[in-house]
Amino acid sequence: MKDFVIIGHKALTTGDFSLNDLPGSAGRMDILCRCINTALFLSHGMRRDINVHLVLLGEPDPGKIIRFNGEQLRYLSPDERSSGSLIKKALEKDATPFESQSTPGVWIRRGGLAKLLGEFTENNRRIYYLHEDGEDMRNTSTLSDDAVFILGDHMGVTEEEEGTIKAVSAGTLSIGPLSLHSDHCIIIILNELDRIGQKQTESQAET
Amino acid sequence: MKDFVIIGHKALTTGDFSLNDLPGSAGRMDILCRCINTALFLSHGMRRDINVHLVLLGEPDPGKIIRFNGEQLRYLSPDERSSGSLIKKALEKDATPFESQSTPGVWIRRGGLAKLLGEFTENNRRIYYLHEDGEDMRNTSTLSDDAVFILGDHMGVTEEEEGTIKAVSAGTLSIGPLSLHSDHCIIIILNELDRIGQKQTESQAET
Repeated sequence: MKDFVIIGHKALTTGDFSLNDLPGSAGRMDILCRCINTALFLSHGMRRDINVHLVLLGEPDPGKIIRFNGEQLRYLSPDERSSGSLIKKALEKDATPFESQSTPGVWIRRGGLAKLLGEFTENNRRIYYLHEDGEDMRNTSTLSDDAVFILGDHMGVTEEEEGTIKAVSAGTLSIGPLSLHSDHCIIIILNELDRIGQKQTESQAET
Repeated sequence: MKDFVIIGHKALTTGDFSLNDLPGSAGRMDILCRCINTALFLSHGMRRDINVHLVLLGEPDPGKIIRFNGEQLRYLSPDERSSGSLIKKALEKDATPFESQSTPGVWIRRGGLAKLLGEFTENNRRIYYLHEDGEDMRNTSTLSDDAVFILGDHMGVTEEEEGTIKAVSAGTLSIGPLSLHSDHCIIIILNELDRIGQKQTESQAET
């Protein structure tokens, strides 16, 4: 499994928003919807080996984590309204510290970045922080198929969050010469991992 | 200037559609909206050196080309409804064989793929066809900053269209081991061009 964590600093924490206004009334929920799309869709199917964790920090009840699990996911189409609708349904449930499923493959609970990072660390997962000042990911030899990637939203990542991430991360990675939106970064990360996977398969076939 | 051409086989050719149902009633217009996003947005601004040409082939009046010009573009936000709304406004204009501007940086006219390809050929532009069977774009040494890239939609590219493209194209390129949505391919193409640009700048600085 690969895991993507996206922090939505303004993303609403109630299902009481309109799918017709994901950027405005839902607190830039459109960004998170596009991250769901880019992390999960292939041309002919879905990436089944991926979890996307949306950390929602907006009003009125900050600190909820919604997890989209590629293996079990159903009812998701590529458009923003579709992922927005599944997020809305998740937020309509009562969130507790324990995950509960709102629709197939979508889970919600209370929590924030520190909780998530703690769990990944306990499971000895390699955590990477995506930032334009990082090392070019094409030069990183340690990228594995079970890596965890942490990304900000339109507001980036706060200083405090950055401290929390860097304390446990295996490194800071950059995706190229220009700074891109988080959903765009995910595409480039996955392309790199697809290429690493292909090389490994080819070298195994040769031996 | 770099140019992206995306063929929308079912994309509606009237502005009479709902922004609440871009995938359904608008004939998978959501795909074209996401291509606009990935071709034009940077984290802190817009790619000004890009044209996106949407070739709309759906009912009721097939054969319209909408061009988004990064240099002049205004009023575009990253969400699907925003580009959908600019497309809708363009389609509400009477289209003639000559371009007319609907909103700043958005142009519409009658025409199809052959017309566009003819114009690029006349201007000695290098045209690339994006397809999973193509050569890995990381191995292509000829990619220039004024290349033209042709992509299909959810239906791919018809046999006839492929013939028309291949007759004038400089090559067929693949973006990696897996087949991806067109909007995702655009991100990978632009990342590769960003990297080529950076290398050129660095080598010029050294000499």
